[in-house]
Amino acid sequence: MEEHVEMLGRAFVEHYYHLFDNDRSSLSSLYQPTSMLTFEGQKVQGAEEISSKLNSLPFDQCLHSISTVDTQSSAFHGGIIVFVSGSLQLAGEEHHLRFSQMFHLVPTLQGSFFVQNDIFRLNYG
Amino acid sequence: MEEHVEMLGRAFVEHYYHLFDNDRSSLSSLYQPTSMLTFEGQKVQGAEEISSKLNSLPFDQCLHSISTVDTQSSAFHGGIIVFVSGSLQLAGEEHHLRFSQMFHLVPTLQGSFFVQNDIFRLNYG
Repeated sequence: MEEHVEMLGRAFVEHYYHLFDNDRSSLSSLYQPTSMLTFEGQKVQGAEEISSKLNSLPFDQCLHSISTVDTQSSAFHGGIIVFVSGSLQLAGEEHHLRFSQMFHLVPTLQGSFFVQNDIFRLNYG
Repeated sequence: MEEHVEMLGRAFVEHYYHLFDNDRSSLSSLYQPTSMLTFEGQKVQGAEEISSKLNSLPFDQCLHSISTVDTQSSAFHGGIIVFVSGSLQLAGEEHHLRFSQMFHLVPTLQGSFFVQNDIFRLNYG
């Protein structure tokens, strides 16, 4: 059970950051009207608002590198908690920004998952 | 609603780290048999196992300082997601260790909360 959760969590993480780095506007498909994003303390709700927020971040090209992925079943409705640490490199900049991010994935009726909760923080050293 | 969640989340965070720093063995009361902790990638389940893990960490006295607390309702059963960043100072050591930690709090039948999910990671710079 927990191995399955780990596999799903890792697959989600690869998919999410691949979309973020290559086709950011398509991330909206991973959220639903109830979804919440808190990005560096700023809270937005709903797929549309979240997509606007992600697409208006003050950088275009970026590359996420993942350091750790921790997963747990959230024990209700087949949800999965995913906790990621990694670094973010912006196009044209040499240094990396370290970040932590958590996702709460909830099953859809179609057998897939959507992001119910998303919290992102840069790690200041 | 979200203000209430934020207040509860912050109160939990204060309570949790106060207990951790002053009476670590009492943290077991915040977990239940279904609870999961992933501490630096090591996964343990159940209040008893989690308490053993926390009490066998290789340091006695420590002091947590909180930098940020982000909260969201997890939308199911009145659960709350809490995402914390901060630093940890071990007794007798000068430098601080930066960490990120997330909790999924779930209401008890008694009107309180327990920790269903707990994921802790040190932030390496």
